[in-house]
Amino acid sequence: MGHYVNFQDELKKRTDEAEAAIRQYLPPEEGFAKTMAEAMNYSMCAGGKRLRPILMLETCRLFHGDEELVRPFMAAMEMIHTHSLIHDDLPAIDNDDYRRGRLTTHKVYGEAMGVLSGVALLNYAYETMFRAFDMAPGDSRVIRALRVMSEKTGIYGMLGGQSVDVENDGKPLSREMLDYIYEHKTSALIEASMMTGAILAGASEEEIAAIEKAARNIGLAFQIQDDILDVTSTSEELGKPVHSDEKNHKVTYVTLFGIHKAAQQVEELSREALGILGSLNQKNEFLCALTEELISRRK
Amino acid sequence: MGHYVNFQDELKKRTDEAEAAIRQYLPPEEGFAKTMAEAMNYSMCAGGKRLRPILMLETCRLFHGDEELVRPFMAAMEMIHTHSLIHDDLPAIDNDDYRRGRLTTHKVYGEAMGVLSGVALLNYAYETMFRAFDMAPGDSRVIRALRVMSEKTGIYGMLGGQSVDVENDGKPLSREMLDYIYEHKTSALIEASMMTGAILAGASEEEIAAIEKAARNIGLAFQIQDDILDVTSTSEELGKPVHSDEKNHKVTYVTLFGIHKAAQQVEELSREALGILGSLNQKNEFLCALTEELISRRK
Repeated sequence: MGHYVNFQDELKKRTDEAEAAIRQYLPPEEGFAKTMAEAMNYSMCAGGKRLRPILMLETCRLFHGDEELVRPFMAAMEMIHTHSLIHDDLPAIDNDDYRRGRLTTHKVYGEAMGVLSGVALLNYAYETMFRAFDMAPGDSRVIRALRVMSEKTGIYGMLGGQSVDVENDGKPLSREMLDYIYEHKTSALIEASMMTGAILAGASEEEIAAIEKAARNIGLAFQIQDDILDVTSTSEELGKPVHSDEKNHKVTYVTLFGIHKAAQQVEELSREALGILGSLNQKNEFLCALTEELISRRK
Repeated sequence: MGHYVNFQDELKKRTDEAEAAIRQYLPPEEGFAKTMAEAMNYSMCAGGKRLRPILMLETCRLFHGDEELVRPFMAAMEMIHTHSLIHDDLPAIDNDDYRRGRLTTHKVYGEAMGVLSGVALLNYAYETMFRAFDMAPGDSRVIRALRVMSEKTGIYGMLGGQSVDVENDGKPLSREMLDYIYEHKTSALIEASMMTGAILAGASEEEIAAIEKAARNIGLAFQIQDDILDVTSTSEELGKPVHSDEKNHKVTYVTLFGIHKAAQQVEELSREALGILGSLNQKNEFLCALTEELISRRK
């Protein structure tokens, strides 16, 4: 990160900002449904990278938006993402006992609560986003952001990608289908994050479309880097088991094209994303540095 | 139904209206995520009573509201309700193979798709409700309805009730806790249905509060009647196994108070709901007849 001094310090600042927004909107652990709130918060506070809320806030900053308005959406995005991780880990899907070095939600709270608290987090994301109407009643940007968030989460977004992934588990996959899965399972929420930042900041239609394209590339690069790390990293570095793709006979960019070509793809996708970000009238140096960082990350 | 001629014919008309609203908003079965859309539609078209959308539309009519605006919410309510049934039937929760005389979703599409298509239906409910903004951009009634729908669905509503139900499975329950479960697991969505009909029709705060109270009673009566039918009905009448509560050592109004007293409660709750509906300035005879019908239903 030669061109951006103190990247790690700056990232730490952003992570703290995202943590603060998330914690502001977590459900209180009280009342009859206390255990459900605990299960929701257990997974929300498991020490994720908070990449999506950070990307949302930095895209909002790129277009000089109102940071207060974006905060409920930052928390909601992390709830949507975390809900998908809880369900991914379920016995019926990936059957993982550990994530980020801790027991998964269903291992601690049981499988029924794993299903229900995942759903409750997704629903709470909507409850949280609706609180933006308290700050901006009837605001058309809030409504537009809500529609993008919901579409990129559902059958035409992340959940659609997950369903195709699950349906083809263990089967040979074409490049076309793998791209569909990655663009939906992973890119869709990155797109929603950055588009929401742009929309709430009042970016133009052209700018929103450019951000969507950059985000798609960042998401793909991120997912392919995940494939690479599953082969090259250690479980200590990663905080989860490695070589799981091989063990599960999973088709990935690495199994389709080999590590070298997969790494080239990450590099290319990141360059293209940086090219789009560089072509905008506004600049956000940290956002560019973060995009570059995604290539070289070790976890 | 002496005071309301041709109740069954009128109910059939309302059911058809609800079916039409629901079918208008179902996801098309196409593209890569075709199987997910099929799984969503399989459960949505399994021949439910459509009670919640009917209650929503009839409450909207009670206050002379715009029926077009309420249609996406009718479909969304049935999606939310159906999502909860799919998840209820999962092996990790009630482990039911049949519902309404047909194989449950996870028996047909597998457990992973059962989890994911349930979630996708919940999310699609939001995507569908947001389409009301096409008819009424930035409308404060739409926003209010969205907030009621989300709150009554989530940890402070149905999902909270389900979590407490699951957590206490097989344990002795106090009356207080059973009431909490029924008021949330069952009444919350009935409340959301009727409140949304009232809100979208522009009812006053007092009227909305009265409708919430009536709906709570209707929901409780409906759930206790369910407990009674589990003991007194046959599986042919009910389209699902009977005596399941006894088999699962489930605490219900019947096990706590006996059939006779449970039936009295249903009667009382229905009378109180009818009293509230009768105290409003506007009248909807069919809505009252439907409320009475809930007492005497056999399935």
